[in-house]
Amino acid sequence: MPQVSIALAPGDGIGPEIMNATLDLMKAAGVHDHVEFVPVEMGAAVFAKGNTRGMTAEAISKTEDCGILFKGPMGTPSGGGGKSINVTARKLWNAYANFRTFKTLPGVETVYSKAGIHVDFSIVRENIEDTYGGVEHRLSNDTIQCKRLISAPGCDEVHRFAFQTARIMGLKKVHCGHKANIMKMTDGLFLERFKTAGKDFPEIETGDVIVDALCLNLVVKPQQYQMIVLPNLQGDIVSDLCAGLVGGLGFAPSANIGNHISIFEAVHGTAPDIAGKGIGNPTSLILSGLMMLRHICLVKEAANLENALLATLESGAHTGDFGDKSKPTLNTQQFVDAIKSNLGNKPKTVPAVPVPAGNTQTFTRPPRPNGQQVIRTFKNLVTHVVGCDIYLDSPLAPISLAEEMNRCAEDTPFRLTLISNRGTQVWPTGSVYTECVDYYRVRFELKDGVVAGSFGQSRCVSLMDKIAEKFTVCSYELLRTFEGVKGYSMAQGQ
Amino acid sequence: MPQVSIALAPGDGIGPEIMNATLDLMKAAGVHDHVEFVPVEMGAAVFAKGNTRGMTAEAISKTEDCGILFKGPMGTPSGGGGKSINVTARKLWNAYANFRTFKTLPGVETVYSKAGIHVDFSIVRENIEDTYGGVEHRLSNDTIQCKRLISAPGCDEVHRFAFQTARIMGLKKVHCGHKANIMKMTDGLFLERFKTAGKDFPEIETGDVIVDALCLNLVVKPQQYQMIVLPNLQGDIVSDLCAGLVGGLGFAPSANIGNHISIFEAVHGTAPDIAGKGIGNPTSLILSGLMMLRHICLVKEAANLENALLATLESGAHTGDFGDKSKPTLNTQQFVDAIKSNLGNKPKTVPAVPVPAGNTQTFTRPPRPNGQQVIRTFKNLVTHVVGCDIYLDSPLAPISLAEEMNRCAEDTPFRLTLISNRGTQVWPTGSVYTECVDYYRVRFELKDGVVAGSFGQSRCVSLMDKIAEKFTVCSYELLRTFEGVKGYSMAQGQ
Repeated sequence: MPQVSIALAPGDGIGPEIMNATLDLMKAAGVHDHVEFVPVEMGAAVFAKGNTRGMTAEAISKTEDCGILFKGPMGTPSGGGGKSINVTARKLWNAYANFRTFKTLPGVETVYSKAGIHVDFSIVRENIEDTYGGVEHRLSNDTIQCKRLISAPGCDEVHRFAFQTARIMGLKKVHCGHKANIMKMTDGLFLERFKTAGKDFPEIETGDVIVDALCLNLVVKPQQYQMIVLPNLQGDIVSDLCAGLVGGLGFAPSANIGNHISIFEAVHGTAPDIAGKGIGNPTSLILSGLMMLRHICLVKEAANLENALLATLESGAHTGDFGDKSKPTLNTQQFVDAIKSNLGNKPKTVPAVPVPAGNTQTFTRPPRPNGQQVIRTFKNLVTHVVGCDIYLDSPLAPISLAEEMNRCAEDTPFRLTLISNRGTQVWPTGSVYTECVDYYRVRFELKDGVVAGSFGQSRCVSLMDKIAEKFTVCSYELLRTFEGVKGYSMAQGQ
Repeated sequence: MPQVSIALAPGDGIGPEIMNATLDLMKAAGVHDHVEFVPVEMGAAVFAKGNTRGMTAEAISKTEDCGILFKGPMGTPSGGGGKSINVTARKLWNAYANFRTFKTLPGVETVYSKAGIHVDFSIVRENIEDTYGGVEHRLSNDTIQCKRLISAPGCDEVHRFAFQTARIMGLKKVHCGHKANIMKMTDGLFLERFKTAGKDFPEIETGDVIVDALCLNLVVKPQQYQMIVLPNLQGDIVSDLCAGLVGGLGFAPSANIGNHISIFEAVHGTAPDIAGKGIGNPTSLILSGLMMLRHICLVKEAANLENALLATLESGAHTGDFGDKSKPTLNTQQFVDAIKSNLGNKPKTVPAVPVPAGNTQTFTRPPRPNGQQVIRTFKNLVTHVVGCDIYLDSPLAPISLAEEMNRCAEDTPFRLTLISNRGTQVWPTGSVYTECVDYYRVRFELKDGVVAGSFGQSRCVSLMDKIAEKFTVCSYELLRTFEGVKGYSMAQGQ
């Protein structure tokens, strides 16, 4: 009697072949005694019907009923407005943590295996925020903006997942990768929340590393890391780098974890050139399936399967895309048959995964929410309005702009304190070598003697209104203090 | 009689030692017949005097007079408000292109050299824009924003530099790395301007690659690239990754190129643990010096020096941080003496650099500008106001917010078309699984029948004023069309 239902989207190209083979393998390992797989329609066939999401309403509702989605590779059609199913799924279901493991596999030769370097670590990537909101505005003829957002509760969710997973895996140290030396406030928040989350896991050591140094370290000595948690874009870049260390996307599994719905998927392409030939490599999908089995508490079945996979790879069994060419190339089914025949065996050249006598936990999920939940970390902070940043679409030189702005601020509680261009101060002082584009920030702060908190935002809106009589105000930001701390950065040179 | 003056900042830690050795080597190669080095005060000693820029006013003015700065490694003091000299210098002098070459060196063992992979390519990184403006605002208790800006003229400058450099180097193909599949407008602009710039260099093939795939490719098969041009953050990450491929920052030179002032520097650390012992490795600084000599048209001297360096490394000469330990370790001066003794020799195991009979060009620089220049690409486009995005600091649920916003828009030309949270649509439709933070975007667009262009921005400001009576408006963006094309993105799910 199955306890868990899993929505199943085999994918496009080689997807159906490698998915069938993976399910065949899972069945042989006894997974089907506990799991019911529910087919859902996603991918090329759905896009072809003009559905820009690439998934039917029924597929969405079935996936929400199941709480787990197992999916093969799917492409995004170019042109026609089709959107990436992966991105849509993560956003739609708030699968906030992308979890990927990178492990050197026996029989998979890489630059690093040749150098005798054994890779074995994980990346947790924040999946919702950063520039991935896709909030972009053309602010002037020449300048486009993309908003990079980082929220405290968004950070908290992903860091908590990372530490909990590290605890389950028995890891000793988790690193936070970031660029807080440049993005001091946003990545500063990501790092600060990491340290705060880590306090609840005293047995796990924490460290942090700037993302560019991290990439250098990963290329030179990847074995120094156990788990790294990163913001969205940096995590995207670093996790694909790491896939390269173990032989490519065909050998790296991926899970997208949310509180309600989680997605386990092959992240490699659909390989249309070999689709239908039955020769695709199912390793990445099998490895993602192992993550899924562990997620639903089928730890014993996952361990047995992993040992069988390792023993098979170790024996030199391989599909056409990798392995020792002096040994015969197997097709997808033959490769999976070889793994099935190794069920119960353990690898000899690499450590076997411990197999528990039975599964001690059962998978449960929280009830469906009634509406969107507002997640919060900081509440009821004392904030005071202290000015505003106003952004102008203008090709004027800074000095002329300053004259106009000073005039606008005359009868207000504000004074012009800064004009910057692309983040560099150009007024009251600046270098003649700073090249400007047609988009300026002008900053107004309280005049001397005006007390913060003596009025709200209305004075800022009035000032903007006045400036908008003469200039195109393409953007505006309220400047506030939070518990007495300035909620805005200084310009370079300020 | 020197034709070129170069401002010289030896740096901190091992900086003075490796700089002295590098200058000694350059003198032996005849560089001092053409160059006068002008010492300038930058670094730890200047920070220690309370100067948060780490460079004296005299150093700034001398560097501006010279137009070239050659600098050793410098740290940024932690605490005390000191700012990175590297970042300040790039911004202050608009050194918009970071140019770095990565080449496998004989005698420098790496994971890749062990695998028989020869690395030889360049990265050009945009140096001014992206999130490096450091424009950050706390918009609510829980949410912080960093502006990512990409401008057309900023892109044009860096792409033109890349193609011109590729032409001089005789490269056949230049790639653009980007994340335009996610940041469709900003990185879309970066990619579009790349393609446009490439049209002026018909002999050079162009290609583009998404940055995560690029990192995977670089780790698996770096020899497939000749030159890659990238936006600032992505370029920062990728170029440090690439330094790892050739043995680390100690073997990777760096130049920051501007129209008026260019900076050639060692990007590695100051190695305080070995400072003063005379044992630091000058290779990175020497390589950066070679870039500088080529920049000032001393091509012959650079070629001679590079051949001598390669011949020396090939012989097994090494400082303590690298090389064949069965051969004696040299100190900094001994290492440079070995290179001097190889002047006129050529390497045998790797290709020698062609040495021209003489230098055919002279270095010239444009006159000092009178004030900041406004650089422009697109002018006089027809723009129409079509609405605004208003951002609210509010923990309300989307449905309650929608009621309030609809009421505010009643007597205006606008209607509420969207509420999104972290880029995902939550109204008029949305998933109950989307978790919201305390910061919403509400989008107002023209009511049916209202013609774009029939009014300016004032109606938007009035609407914002009305909303600000009841809600904290933390941010605002004007929505416009440019030549009939929407200058703003849709939300995920819209």
